[in-house]
Amino acid sequence: MKLALLQTPPANGDPDQALARLEVAVTAAAAAGADLLIAPELLLPGYNCPDLHAVTAQPVEGAWIARLSALAAAHRCGLVFGWAERAGDRVLNSATAIGPDGAVLATYRKRQLFGAMERASFAPGRDPAPVFDLAGRRCGLQICYDIEFPEHARDLARRGAEVILVPTANPVGFEHVQRLFVPARAAENAVFVAYANYCGAENGLEFGGMSVIAGPDGVPIASAGRGPALLIADLPARGDYPAGMLSSQLDDLVSGA
Amino acid sequence: MKLALLQTPPANGDPDQALARLEVAVTAAAAAGADLLIAPELLLPGYNCPDLHAVTAQPVEGAWIARLSALAAAHRCGLVFGWAERAGDRVLNSATAIGPDGAVLATYRKRQLFGAMERASFAPGRDPAPVFDLAGRRCGLQICYDIEFPEHARDLARRGAEVILVPTANPVGFEHVQRLFVPARAAENAVFVAYANYCGAENGLEFGGMSVIAGPDGVPIASAGRGPALLIADLPARGDYPAGMLSSQLDDLVSGA
Repeated sequence: MKLALLQTPPANGDPDQALARLEVAVTAAAAAGADLLIAPELLLPGYNCPDLHAVTAQPVEGAWIARLSALAAAHRCGLVFGWAERAGDRVLNSATAIGPDGAVLATYRKRQLFGAMERASFAPGRDPAPVFDLAGRRCGLQICYDIEFPEHARDLARRGAEVILVPTANPVGFEHVQRLFVPARAAENAVFVAYANYCGAENGLEFGGMSVIAGPDGVPIASAGRGPALLIADLPARGDYPAGMLSSQLDDLVSGA
Repeated sequence: MKLALLQTPPANGDPDQALARLEVAVTAAAAAGADLLIAPELLLPGYNCPDLHAVTAQPVEGAWIARLSALAAAHRCGLVFGWAERAGDRVLNSATAIGPDGAVLATYRKRQLFGAMERASFAPGRDPAPVFDLAGRRCGLQICYDIEFPEHARDLARRGAEVILVPTANPVGFEHVQRLFVPARAAENAVFVAYANYCGAENGLEFGGMSVIAGPDGVPIASAGRGPALLIADLPARGDYPAGMLSSQLDDLVSGA
């Protein structure tokens, strides 16, 4: 799998701007041969614009997903991104994966809402994160705070996920997530973890950038700094790593411990 | 709590040498006001000397623990160390905590044996890791490979452990444990983790040093390089860390997730 990751400023309630930036990125990613482009949490309509979440939220059958589905199909490149989902009277912090043919593969609704704003804007998701196939790899979805908990990544790995895709919106001051938790989740489960963050600021909230694609040995395959970036990298097969150097925790864990 | 950590070459089957080195270290640690000194895995009789494990292993009531108990009491400094334990026909890879009054506080028998040598030399422990109080802090024990699994540290934290003490014998080539897993376990549970490794070599096995005391924010409080070292550092109260900067995973984890 060739994976592209977009680190971009948040759109602050302007979905057209977000979609325009995404289109530039997916055009470049597809030109480089990427199978999939991952973008941050709540790309539509933005993260730190709580007044707009309920107002703009759309159902899976709405115009946003239709437009992104067409974008993926036009470029033959899958998309993973965060967005505000409307489901009846609930508003959810969701992430959706679209295949290179434009088909919606999976939608995950964030379970581990973080902080007062998210808890006011969104209802928590109720279902375990889905796993699905894309470009021949078994993938799983998480959103931001979810990946900080070892339990959730472990659960995905036990269900066969080999690539964990994480749209996020992580502010300055929480860089231990990129530096420590994301590579630890990758190494302890011998999986790839792609953590796509914002850079820049939105209504006074400054994001930390430092997006990272961590390999199953815990070493970054690609990582960004503080500003806008498009990372494009191949994910080797796990068998390409030296024998015995990837964790075997999934096999070795003493049961009932 | 003031904690001391000894990074030393392994004794290679010479318990008297190991005890002599430990005595020098505990004398210095006590002079610096340390409440506790932690030493590596299988300090007695050594790690990579499998022919000696069963031959030298002693019961808790044996001469080794009596001598270490007297050493702790003489210096008014607690001790945590690894040793080969004989229990009937079983030989165990154990760690014991002795209080500054010489009392045996807890013994833990390693559950996650690592690699062919350990599995040939030792029976796995059957019981969860104990928690106990020392110098006013709730402490827990792990040994080497145990701490790589997020499940075991989480279990100790849920049972109130605030300081996780880990004698280890981690070879060169596995530095992701010191760099990633140990600080991640600390940060995700908001606990201190002290990981006391060997330096030097023993029968062809080269140890990686890089012992570390990780704080509850995932930042090292003290760390060693490749050679012999004695680290002595205060563990601040968790309340001394800036409000909101320590993980609240134990409270926030979505149940059944």
